[in-house]
Amino acid sequence: MSGSSYGQLFKVSTWGESHGPGIGVVVDGCPAGLPLTVADIQKDLDRRRTGQSKVTTTRKETDEVRILSGVFQGKTTGTPIGLWIENQDADSSKYELIKDLYRPGHADFSYDMKYGFRDYRGGGRSSARETAGRVAAGAIARKLLLRKKITIIGYTLQIGPYIAKKIDYKEIEKNIVRCPDKKVAKQMIDHILDARKRGDSVGGIIEIVAKGVPAGLGEPVFDRLDADLAKAMMCIPAVKGVEVGVGFSAATLSGSECNDPFIAKGKKICVKTNHAGGILGGISSGADIVLRFVVKPTASINQEQDTVDRNGKKSKIRVEGRHDPCVAPRAVPIGEAMAALTLIDHLMRLQHSKL
Amino acid sequence: MSGSSYGQLFKVSTWGESHGPGIGVVVDGCPAGLPLTVADIQKDLDRRRTGQSKVTTTRKETDEVRILSGVFQGKTTGTPIGLWIENQDADSSKYELIKDLYRPGHADFSYDMKYGFRDYRGGGRSSARETAGRVAAGAIARKLLLRKKITIIGYTLQIGPYIAKKIDYKEIEKNIVRCPDKKVAKQMIDHILDARKRGDSVGGIIEIVAKGVPAGLGEPVFDRLDADLAKAMMCIPAVKGVEVGVGFSAATLSGSECNDPFIAKGKKICVKTNHAGGILGGISSGADIVLRFVVKPTASINQEQDTVDRNGKKSKIRVEGRHDPCVAPRAVPIGEAMAALTLIDHLMRLQHSKL
Amino acid sequence: MSGSSYGQLFKVSTWGESHGPGIGVVVDGCPAGLPLTVADIQKDLDRRRTGQSKVTTTRKETDEVRILSGVFQGKTTGTPIGLWIENQDADSSKYELIKDLYRPGHADFSYDMKYGFRDYRGGGRSSARETAGRVAAGAIARKLLLRKKITIIGYTLQIGPYIAKKIDYKEIEKNIVRCPDKKVAKQMIDHILDARKRGDSVGGIIEIVAKGVPAGLGEPVFDRLDADLAKAMMCIPAVKGVEVGVGFSAATLSGSECNDPFIAKGKKICVKTNHAGGILGGISSGADIVLRFVVKPTASINQEQDTVDRNGKKSKIRVEGRHDPCVAPRAVPIGEAMAALTLIDHLMRLQHSKL
Amino acid sequence: MSGSSYGQLFKVSTWGESHGPGIGVVVDGCPAGLPLTVADIQKDLDRRRTGQSKVTTTRKETDEVRILSGVFQGKTTGTPIGLWIENQDADSSKYELIKDLYRPGHADFSYDMKYGFRDYRGGGRSSARETAGRVAAGAIARKLLLRKKITIIGYTLQIGPYIAKKIDYKEIEKNIVRCPDKKVAKQMIDHILDARKRGDSVGGIIEIVAKGVPAGLGEPVFDRLDADLAKAMMCIPAVKGVEVGVGFSAATLSGSECNDPFIAKGKKICVKTNHAGGILGGISSGADIVLRFVVKPTASINQEQDTVDRNGKKSKIRVEGRHDPCVAPRAVPIGEAMAALTLIDHLMRLQHSKL
Repeated sequence: MSGSSYGQLFKVSTWGESHGPGIGVVVDGCPAGLPLTVADIQKDLDRRRTGQSKVTTTRKETDEVRILSGVFQGKTTGTPIGLWIENQDADSSKYELIKDLYRPGHADFSYDMKYGFRDYRGGGRSSARETAGRVAAGAIARKLLLRKKITIIGYTLQIGPYIAKKIDYKEIEKNIVRCPDKKVAKQMIDHILDARKRGDSVGGIIEIVAKGVPAGLGEPVFDRLDADLAKAMMCIPAVKGVEVGVGFSAATLSGSECNDPFIAKGKKICVKTNHAGGILGGISSGADIVLRFVVKPTASINQEQDTVDRNGKKSKIRVEGRHDPCVAPRAVPIGEAMAALTLIDHLMRLQHSKL
Repeated sequence: MSGSSYGQLFKVSTWGESHGPGIGVVVDGCPAGLPLTVADIQKDLDRRRTGQSKVTTTRKETDEVRILSGVFQGKTTGTPIGLWIENQDADSSKYELIKDLYRPGHADFSYDMKYGFRDYRGGGRSSARETAGRVAAGAIARKLLLRKKITIIGYTLQIGPYIAKKIDYKEIEKNIVRCPDKKVAKQMIDHILDARKRGDSVGGIIEIVAKGVPAGLGEPVFDRLDADLAKAMMCIPAVKGVEVGVGFSAATLSGSECNDPFIAKGKKICVKTNHAGGILGGISSGADIVLRFVVKPTASINQEQDTVDRNGKKSKIRVEGRHDPCVAPRAVPIGEAMAALTLIDHLMRLQHSKL
Repeated sequence: MSGSSYGQLFKVSTWGESHGPGIGVVVDGCPAGLPLTVADIQKDLDRRRTGQSKVTTTRKETDEVRILSGVFQGKTTGTPIGLWIENQDADSSKYELIKDLYRPGHADFSYDMKYGFRDYRGGGRSSARETAGRVAAGAIARKLLLRKKITIIGYTLQIGPYIAKKIDYKEIEKNIVRCPDKKVAKQMIDHILDARKRGDSVGGIIEIVAKGVPAGLGEPVFDRLDADLAKAMMCIPAVKGVEVGVGFSAATLSGSECNDPFIAKGKKICVKTNHAGGILGGISSGADIVLRFVVKPTASINQEQDTVDRNGKKSKIRVEGRHDPCVAPRAVPIGEAMAALTLIDHLMRLQHSKL
Repeated sequence: MSGSSYGQLFKVSTWGESHGPGIGVVVDGCPAGLPLTVADIQKDLDRRRTGQSKVTTTRKETDEVRILSGVFQGKTTGTPIGLWIENQDADSSKYELIKDLYRPGHADFSYDMKYGFRDYRGGGRSSARETAGRVAAGAIARKLLLRKKITIIGYTLQIGPYIAKKIDYKEIEKNIVRCPDKKVAKQMIDHILDARKRGDSVGGIIEIVAKGVPAGLGEPVFDRLDADLAKAMMCIPAVKGVEVGVGFSAATLSGSECNDPFIAKGKKICVKTNHAGGILGGISSGADIVLRFVVKPTASINQEQDTVDRNGKKSKIRVEGRHDPCVAPRAVPIGEAMAALTLIDHLMRLQHSKL
């Protein structure tokens, strides 16, 4: 009930803290018979892990995953898949100095109000380290989706004022900011490194595209596909907004501009344009699902900031841990994972929509 | 499992269709002992109902609510509260003509793909009429929240290019677009009426503010308060984006600009600024919750559009029903209701966070 | 959260009280495309309703069901099916006299402790009247099960000391106690009428058999089929025990007696005996599901009993309402309905067990 | 969705198999601030573990539990508590010989039908080994219950024809069958050892008593306390029946015998007798909760039995693993744990019943 589970049919539960023994995740609801190896999962974890480039934190975690249950003779058994990722480079020493201070922009204060204590060692459950579990679970979801030819691609669309102008999927993993526009990628990298030099951080926007999603995913009313995707993205640390298709620009459009006409391509009915981002009335239309989410600049900055301690005493704080100057590049695989978990769940629910 | 329930402790389930006998809602989880009358609920329903002004649809529904269970001697009993709102002015005749055509921007096609049939009479479950049930349930939630001095205010922030510059709460219900800026309200009204004249529609942005929310609401990881609010808003028909606090503008901010320093006001610790929109690490900080959502221009427009029929045959469609030229004004009470349902649920969950 | 919902994929929520306007039920999760009429549902309701014979209460309820949503052109739409059964013969006058007294064997006291008030008018939510909603929902479940050739038969196995010796399905609905043994049925009827004459009541045992259930229903660990069936039966008012297959007699059996050997019938593997009652390791084996539940003698008796009032003052009580002298005959369709709801839910879950 | 989670507010999820690396459990919903050590949990695990006496299996598992998350500075954090128990003495060799045969009375066949494969190594998820996770979680629940002075006591009431005549709580843990009647305990032990000698097994009945439970626990309709307890007990491996209070004997009682009169003890209202087993209308009355469940004789017996292989070919099987000749003694702590998990969940739900 602490909010650590996601999904109704493909249920994922994460546990573990940033500076404890490690991060665990249980996937309950994966059908039996899916071939599954450590390598299937490790691939995505490697794109999320720390220390992968000069624009990420220097904490060194190999994020090696162990499969502890739910796989027998190389295939899933239909029962819970337990995964475990040990923490290796947790260093709490830097945090000792600020253990009574609330870090601005962090969850320290709100957690303390909620639970009556402060896990000062890097955020505990609120740490982005927890997302390793989600990415591991997402890798299993993606393997299932792939059987239905559904693929998910994420990339950095914007960092600071720099916006990708070209969307070349082949470029994404070639640069350390995961930008589909080679030229803009360089500007983004410079912008991040410049911020890091100043002890500051920057925000950005990630775009997620799901291809091959059949029409009919999503449920009426509350569990709409867009609503569940909005939750899925917004529950990623640092995210402050989500939009689908034309998103916030819809405010200045007219209906005649915004509506997507239906056309037939051979026997298949589809939309001519995709302003809706692939979702109509909360249910997928068969067009690409297109959504974006914004990540705020990392809260941990190496600059002096005003704050108070647990007794309300005025103080100054400078957060000297090892932090990402921009979380966007590492948020890409997390966004993909959350999209995958949402889509697989709705794909399974779809099986019950008609006789 | 068709996605018609919302909430974990304060659980709301809606049922009923636009052109069936009526709309029902069951509220399961309201504690016993709350004084509750029809008037408590009707108040909010009246702000949502059709035909309330010249910028809304002309369908005339009184939306009179009946309490069918869960209240005894004027107080809630702790068992399910059943509410019922009869449809009175459902007119399916206009829809007969277009019963085999997919309306662009509507859920006709995606529902057909999902369920294998088309409820051509005004959208069935996908109709905004269903939100009457949410608003009714939300009114009960608001009554509970008020006991803890938590209030929710919604208003239209933007319609087309017109953005409120002043936020004067007293103005909101004085104009038919629910804009807190008297002067801009007039421009918004003209903009909507102009679109209607052209048989077109316009979009807009609504802002919701929750005041008096204690720190500690929201759960770590998946059921973050902002994540649940994002889902709550995105599941409102026509919504294409949600943002909290600085929202999408976070992309171009630096950490030193974006972080909210902590200060002490007497014995109370709070934030000096509120860029976070009242939520830190997914958990409320005690500051005002501030969020925005965008509604697309109404899909039903009185202009000829390209489409196909169920067999893929090319066709033209002009939707001649009675539609809101802009859904923003009526979306305000729906947004408030969804925020109320989310907050009461998390307030109840908060009781279990510590001993 | 008040415990009024049942099922994970085929979700049933009941609402309404014994002496309020009526009883409602929402079925959420029925796939689209099932032909459904009032008659389909009424059939089972008629077997549960009051006043059907001289061994039941004389309260006269026609229990006419209305379908308020979820059916379009004679078929289910895949969205919530709302059903409504009006109360017609609610007579609270008899209850006025005992409104401050706790009736022994009833839920008056425990509800008062829980909710802080007493709905003295016939039990409110704790009344067996609520089960009308379950039977209505169960009728839909049974229609779905029938498509897979799964049928459910219930009957009275024992009333007082009288135990059916023959199980002749054709006899069940021919006698008013629903006993499959014609001769014993007469003894049971006499036993009940004799108790009624004394102002007393008697208990009994119902057996439920589900035929045609495929192997594989039920989930490991907590949501075992037998565990869910145990809950399903125990949540029927007045039930004090449930057993599957050999049940409590297992205590005195040895493993060599109790185990069911496997045999092959043509290409089909099955069990030679069925001591397990069709469930192995919590999962159906393909053999008939066989279970029994016991109902206690009706708590409302027309004899003077010791009790106290809400202030703890000693008093005498005689319950003069219209009560069943034995609930077993009317519990048969309720048991069948609860079994149907459990089986359809697990049948739907089964679809996700393997690729 | 594979049925491996239990509870709504105090949610327990187990994972892991009998012959895999170990057994895990995640407790989600334990409030922050509860002092918790390994010793708190180990105590109950030691009563469940294998090899504890001559009437249990000889598999030697120390069942040492590790706390992997959710505890910081000796107290729970309010976030998921991850527990891990390594398998140490898993010996699959005996199972290799029978890997294609279905063991009578076991879940081999039903799991194979469900999942399409057979984890022949001791039952996988269906093994009683999985219950180690439940007992570990139950120990946390019991610590929480104890703060409200709620205690749970379980004991073996019957094995074969031998029934405890005296209920002396102090005797229970003094004998290896956990019988509260010293003299009968000896007969039970002889009966078990005699069965083992013959390569056979025996069944038994366990009684669970919960003391100090306040009135008001349980929800109306489906989530009744007795219904949830019935599920809780029935989901323990080998259980074939559950009853509360007078249980199945209610069939032959009259209402005047069965009803418990209310009396006042000082200011407290309570029942004079407790035929109801502490539950009225599905809600606790404040009296002791009393329930019983029956365990069938262990399915694994060292005698030749008829069976078939996966292709339906006739065969003989003799199960030579290390098995309990009677599961009753080790089922006692499991029953206690399941009762504890059910009670803590309802105790938390009770907080929402009234204002």
